[in-house]
Amino acid sequence: MPIRLITEQPDFPERFTTFLGSKREASVDVQEQVATIIADVRARGDDALIDLSRTFDRVDLAKLGLRVTDAELDAALASIPPETREALAFAKARIESHHARQKPADDSYRDAAGVVLGHRWTSVDAVGLYVPGGTAAYPSSVLMNAVPAQVAGVPRIVMVVPAPDGEIAPLVLAAARLAGVHEVYRVGGAQAVAALAYGTQTIQPVDKIVGPGNAYVAAAKRQVFGKVGIDMVAGPSEVLILADGNASADWIAADLLAQAEHDTAAQSILITDSHELADQVEKAVEGMLATLPRVAIASASWRDHGAIILVPDLASAIPLVDRIAPEHLEIHAANADALAAKVRHAGAIFVGAFTPEAIGDYVGGTNHVLPTARSARFSSGLSVLDFMKRTSILKLDAGALEQLGPAAVRLAAVERLDAHGRSVSIRTNR
Amino acid sequence: MPIRLITEQPDFPERFTTFLGSKREASVDVQEQVATIIADVRARGDDALIDLSRTFDRVDLAKLGLRVTDAELDAALASIPPETREALAFAKARIESHHARQKPADDSYRDAAGVVLGHRWTSVDAVGLYVPGGTAAYPSSVLMNAVPAQVAGVPRIVMVVPAPDGEIAPLVLAAARLAGVHEVYRVGGAQAVAALAYGTQTIQPVDKIVGPGNAYVAAAKRQVFGKVGIDMVAGPSEVLILADGNASADWIAADLLAQAEHDTAAQSILITDSHELADQVEKAVEGMLATLPRVAIASASWRDHGAIILVPDLASAIPLVDRIAPEHLEIHAANADALAAKVRHAGAIFVGAFTPEAIGDYVGGTNHVLPTARSARFSSGLSVLDFMKRTSILKLDAGALEQLGPAAVRLAAVERLDAHGRSVSIRTNR
Repeated sequence: MPIRLITEQPDFPERFTTFLGSKREASVDVQEQVATIIADVRARGDDALIDLSRTFDRVDLAKLGLRVTDAELDAALASIPPETREALAFAKARIESHHARQKPADDSYRDAAGVVLGHRWTSVDAVGLYVPGGTAAYPSSVLMNAVPAQVAGVPRIVMVVPAPDGEIAPLVLAAARLAGVHEVYRVGGAQAVAALAYGTQTIQPVDKIVGPGNAYVAAAKRQVFGKVGIDMVAGPSEVLILADGNASADWIAADLLAQAEHDTAAQSILITDSHELADQVEKAVEGMLATLPRVAIASASWRDHGAIILVPDLASAIPLVDRIAPEHLEIHAANADALAAKVRHAGAIFVGAFTPEAIGDYVGGTNHVLPTARSARFSSGLSVLDFMKRTSILKLDAGALEQLGPAAVRLAAVERLDAHGRSVSIRTNR
Repeated sequence: MPIRLITEQPDFPERFTTFLGSKREASVDVQEQVATIIADVRARGDDALIDLSRTFDRVDLAKLGLRVTDAELDAALASIPPETREALAFAKARIESHHARQKPADDSYRDAAGVVLGHRWTSVDAVGLYVPGGTAAYPSSVLMNAVPAQVAGVPRIVMVVPAPDGEIAPLVLAAARLAGVHEVYRVGGAQAVAALAYGTQTIQPVDKIVGPGNAYVAAAKRQVFGKVGIDMVAGPSEVLILADGNASADWIAADLLAQAEHDTAAQSILITDSHELADQVEKAVEGMLATLPRVAIASASWRDHGAIILVPDLASAIPLVDRIAPEHLEIHAANADALAAKVRHAGAIFVGAFTPEAIGDYVGGTNHVLPTARSARFSSGLSVLDFMKRTSILKLDAGALEQLGPAAVRLAAVERLDAHGRSVSIRTNR
């Protein structure tokens, strides 16, 4: 049974704070093991990758080859059913056209003092995309990470994916092929992250590493951060559904379970002003759970982390939504647009009952890599901007320097950075 | 003597790679001490801050008070000379008007399938600004961090600054007051970062922490990352000057030293196609060094990390610039604009001989918080975007869901996420 909270009860503030602070993931400390793996890859390069893959993935890369060949990528794409290929192509086209709108504009202008100011956006030169192996190998994630990098204009996109027992899901390779990723290595774990950051004989280093992974991968990304850029470290995923009394209990139940089936640490929350709907949803969830293949995962998530919060009216739910800062927010209500406009902190908002979150996972066009675990308070979903960076530009002529110089010299003096001041005054002769 | 490299010499590629890889900072491992401090602040709140400040800053905050009062801020602003106040106000106005142009636009559109897609930018609710104490307490850094947060619309900006022996530089408090920062606490180090991330009885937690600091502060920021957002962790600073034979050796020498005086780990590099200029600059640096108050720091930096690289022509320097990915790039050359346009990786470019980097440190209007230590390959200087985040928005009606649904159901099926598929098919009855 999920927790049920009612805002009008006197202990609500306390219980809500406890609920917000509850941990959903045991943090595993693999820092030292990961540091050892990274040092090994830096010291021995390909040999370390081969040895570590033999140990962790039971695969002989000396024989199979580190790199996945173009022929293998082509074969993977050819091997999947046409309707799957079409669905992936459909998703890719929609992601591409939406992300194309995110390309930032350069700026350059001359101000009243005659100073030219501006900035120029350029893509990162080389990006590494980590793709998990096994059951968490999702072709949709390949598209969500690779397509924005392509749109940003990244010249070199490298994918690493572990091959446990020599196997990589053909769907993942097919998605890479569709997304135009040609440089793929069958290596995973902290060793793959180390190879991307520092390079080996076979793998040239990249400048930024993105993509989800297990505790080892996450720890490795943190450790190489600085040497290369990384995306956010993803936590367990969550959905919050805000619904009025006219919403469909069955649709809501289906969406809560779509979240819950991801992971036992996933979280599904319903906030509603209708006790009746709350009861109906709880019943509907129980009914649907039974027939789900991933019943064990979904029921554990719903039991341990699920929540139903009752509010007097939906407007009063907004501050709670902002405190939860959910990765995904669905709004099933007559005034869904108006409610959505009031929310400040959410990774993505799915407006209206005909927008199940699963559409955003696959084919909506928006990115499904979104800030988890309340981090929507300070971060955004993956976008083209994550694969670009901005160079600021400043240009003065003698006249502009005359106008700006004295204040700069003054501030350099009070900061006791004399050489700063001199670098200005030597030009203005003051 | 700085290192001198000549691209045409046969061992150049090797020597340049060694130069790029050379470490400029001893990395101090303070992880465990910082973890202990953070745990203490989480457990004991204000009491921990008081005890730790007594130990590290020799100050009794129980007596002096954690919070800097409005009266103290006003008094600090009143205490500084009018011309300094005016220079700070001038800098603030220029930073503000330039950063106002960085405010991102929301987007919303309906595509051919009838899907409404878009995104909305909102500010972070609360930002903590770390300001170092002692000699590194720069009022210009207060402006460079606080003003973009103000422009972003951050409702709550908190500043923390250590008060060694009870003292805080009046200039720093004056800059805070000018920038409209009213919530200031006299606490520093890892304990201040912990207080900002987790809160204490007196300090409410924030959502993001920015600003430079020593090894303890940097380690603390890394450790609280995830609980809150952080900006990049700054390394030692560098300038690269690209100059043709007509450039002024004196101006270049002044700019190289303005960088070198920051820190013994700072780096100043000249790339030129003129052996004559190279010799003149080296001589000019020696001449100016003698009269600099910070001669010890500047000469150590120039001796240990300085470099002069000779190229056959400036166009062939561009790939070297991109590999160095300097924080600051100055271009003193007839075709400065054309050269600037070719550079892909630099934090900021100062175009033409009348644009000394020090102008960008204070009054140019662009931000002086820039990516160091080659991180311009994958990151950008501080901007308004660092204080905002993007919520993506998706809205389908029944017709749009009919069009997108089948592909989503197909992809959910191949990813074996049945509840995902059902959440779509339950609405489309397929």
